[in-house]
Amino acid sequence: MRAKTNVALCAFITTTLLSPLAPTYAQQLANEQELKAQQTTSSSPKNIIMVIADGMGPVYPVLYRNFKDDPQTNVVEKTVFDRLLVGSSSTYPHKMSGYVTDSAASATALATGVKTYNGAIGVDINKSPLLTVLEYAKIQGKRTGLVSTSQIVHASPASYIAKNESRRNYNEIADDFFDNRAEEKLIADVIIGGGTRYFKRDDRDLVKEFTDSGYLYIDSYEQLETLNTGSQTNVLSLLADIALPSALDSEIDSRLLTMGKVAVAQLENEKHGFVLIIEASQVDWAGHSNDIAYAMGEMDDLAKTMRFFEEYANQTQDTLVVLTADHNTGGVSIGRDGEYKWQGKWLKNLKQSPKAIATAIETDDLEKAEVEHLLGFDLSSDEFKSLIKADDEKGIYQALKSLLDLKTHTGWTTGGHTGVDVPVYAIGPGSDKFSGFQDNTDIGKELFHLLNDKKD
Amino acid sequence: MRAKTNVALCAFITTTLLSPLAPTYAQQLANEQELKAQQTTSSSPKNIIMVIADGMGPVYPVLYRNFKDDPQTNVVEKTVFDRLLVGSSSTYPHKMSGYVTDSAASATALATGVKTYNGAIGVDINKSPLLTVLEYAKIQGKRTGLVSTSQIVHASPASYIAKNESRRNYNEIADDFFDNRAEEKLIADVIIGGGTRYFKRDDRDLVKEFTDSGYLYIDSYEQLETLNTGSQTNVLSLLADIALPSALDSEIDSRLLTMGKVAVAQLENEKHGFVLIIEASQVDWAGHSNDIAYAMGEMDDLAKTMRFFEEYANQTQDTLVVLTADHNTGGVSIGRDGEYKWQGKWLKNLKQSPKAIATAIETDDLEKAEVEHLLGFDLSSDEFKSLIKADDEKGIYQALKSLLDLKTHTGWTTGGHTGVDVPVYAIGPGSDKFSGFQDNTDIGKELFHLLNDKKD
Ligand SMILES: [Zn+2]
Ligand SMILES: [Zn+2]
Repeated sequence: MRAKTNVALCAFITTTLLSPLAPTYAQQLANEQELKAQQTTSSSPKNIIMVIADGMGPVYPVLYRNFKDDPQTNVVEKTVFDRLLVGSSSTYPHKMSGYVTDSAASATALATGVKTYNGAIGVDINKSPLLTVLEYAKIQGKRTGLVSTSQIVHASPASYIAKNESRRNYNEIADDFFDNRAEEKLIADVIIGGGTRYFKRDDRDLVKEFTDSGYLYIDSYEQLETLNTGSQTNVLSLLADIALPSALDSEIDSRLLTMGKVAVAQLENEKHGFVLIIEASQVDWAGHSNDIAYAMGEMDDLAKTMRFFEEYANQTQDTLVVLTADHNTGGVSIGRDGEYKWQGKWLKNLKQSPKAIATAIETDDLEKAEVEHLLGFDLSSDEFKSLIKADDEKGIYQALKSLLDLKTHTGWTTGGHTGVDVPVYAIGPGSDKFSGFQDNTDIGKELFHLLNDKKD
Repeated sequence: MRAKTNVALCAFITTTLLSPLAPTYAQQLANEQELKAQQTTSSSPKNIIMVIADGMGPVYPVLYRNFKDDPQTNVVEKTVFDRLLVGSSSTYPHKMSGYVTDSAASATALATGVKTYNGAIGVDINKSPLLTVLEYAKIQGKRTGLVSTSQIVHASPASYIAKNESRRNYNEIADDFFDNRAEEKLIADVIIGGGTRYFKRDDRDLVKEFTDSGYLYIDSYEQLETLNTGSQTNVLSLLADIALPSALDSEIDSRLLTMGKVAVAQLENEKHGFVLIIEASQVDWAGHSNDIAYAMGEMDDLAKTMRFFEEYANQTQDTLVVLTADHNTGGVSIGRDGEYKWQGKWLKNLKQSPKAIATAIETDDLEKAEVEHLLGFDLSSDEFKSLIKADDEKGIYQALKSLLDLKTHTGWTTGGHTGVDVPVYAIGPGSDKFSGFQDNTDIGKELFHLLNDKKD
């Protein structure tokens, strides 16, 4: 299913702005704008940075606080998440999919303000395309960006730009990155993430189409970091065939922070501001794998990125930053099996991700001391045996995760998602709109309202 | 360890108000009071109702929302918890006890604003007594109450009134209910809960000591409900030998609501207002048992109680209601084993608690139809066999919980506590003080500040 340009846009507006949100929605927005004009305009941000930490339910930021805790002090140090917490959000999909969402339905809710079925990318339960906040920002004249640590066509980023009945149609979704337009214009000015294989295909070379349309194509961090700040370059940057490596295995430190900084530097503009959607994709994958070390690596990259955005919001004074999750993953818990304990020290000195270490054990037939070096702690001989007795890489990975779970006292209930509400963090003008309890669709709707309240 | 009246009070004030909160704490409070006087006084409540839902981590209110969802509508209906959510709280104990708290350390933090070790009741890590908000309220001339669905000497309620190095010393803790004083006065004017055996003992009859001091002693709901509203009667009501029965097995509907209403009716007064501490104790016990039906029964009684308090806050306009948990219990999750599902319908028609049904199956050798009647749904013959094949009541209870977990798709990681932050709910003057992230000690300290800001 592919929706064509102008027809599609018209459909979005009818579907989202008028019909599902009642016939009076446009009217309502206009009235609000009038009301707002009488009040202070401090709640209308010029720039919006929306961060989605895929799978980051309420336990992950607390795990991260404990993981980063300085054992020398008497308190558990607060994190950037603690400083920015304002509320909580329900995540359930349209009821036809029950109470537990997937990333597609939840990202579509965050992007459009409309509930849909699990698997849907930017379409409602009738598979009709929906207008997204990114498209609306482009219509409003803002610069727009999309950044992700997964393939950029993955469910969460895709929901902001593509319209497809299924998240699995990666090639069609990649096509939408170029073919879907907002008033003839390409929807995202800056695109950074993984997924080269979906853009350079036998049947179509989207990279060429983007560069023909004036985009700079970049496939390395070096090149990305040499871009001139403030040059308002349009960028398509694909840094991996599919997803980027995990934070623990990344060739550069803090790849999310790096991409986020570059995106902001190219999106910044005096006149209309920008909207950046940025996804920390792999908290979810760590949750699916029940891999606590992987999760802490991803949370650390996210925390550094949020500290940068926090500072950016404080400096610019006209940037709203919102962080939330699309759902929780893994049913992770701090403590397990009746013991009132959790110990992060076993995760502090890993040289690589548990999966990469498992591969190294299997491939290179590592000795005990070599494994200890990679893990950053000593193993008892029973612990070492438990790792190497597995037949294959998968078994070794499983054994290594079990070892880390037992040592840290981390519990899990599922390799899938769970239905708990997720935390909401915000800073900057408009951040008070996200206080207390809300639904994921409310977050999408609020962003539409704030975009409609534009100052310029 | 028992602390004597005046010496003790003096120690509390020195310990809590002066020393751990820095020598300038009293000064600081005075300055704040001055500042406040210049501002609106709308943030100073006359009455404070502090509700602790023991063990109610962030998943329970979402489970409850799904459990209560009307399947006929297109939305998941919001609950009282959703209406009142304002923030989140960390719960870790003093670092000497790690990152996962017990009820004693966390209730002491909520009651006094000071971190302590797991097991401590109203004392710090040096086992020195701490001043509690309930004692401070009494010193301020307010009426005071303590209500619980467990034995009233259990960790959470005890932490507001007793000083003991160990939560297990129930008799000494019961003695403190009478012996500890605030400026010679008994600390709690209204005490309602379970625990007769700790008050009527061979070595001491505390019931007689209370009645000799002018308290009305009540041991039935009937008598409790005939009390005249507004008569400002001092009440000691012990409704069970140890804990009250679970909500699902209670002789009356909504026992927590009943006790809460009676407490408010006897505490209300024109002049100085009141402070009521009320604990929904058994969410925690349901979590320890990994019993989802038990948990929903307790949450339902709590929700009804909160709706009453919400209405009371709206009507009186000078009552602050705060609800939080001391920690999470059970590592419960909405969804498990990779399935994106949760179904509350299997919990809607239970006639008794799973434990009581297990007892009935074992004791009365029930037939399939009788078990189905008690459960409120039909069983396959395999399901029925899975229940009756267990050897004893404990095995049947375990089998029944497993059946309900599988049917509802509920997961658990532990029979103990976990370290996730807990939600914070508030309504009424001062409720904005509990927005966003805070520590459990911050909640205690904020209540001291609000009490110090008294209007009268
Ligand atoms: Zn996922
Ligand atoms: Zn407990």
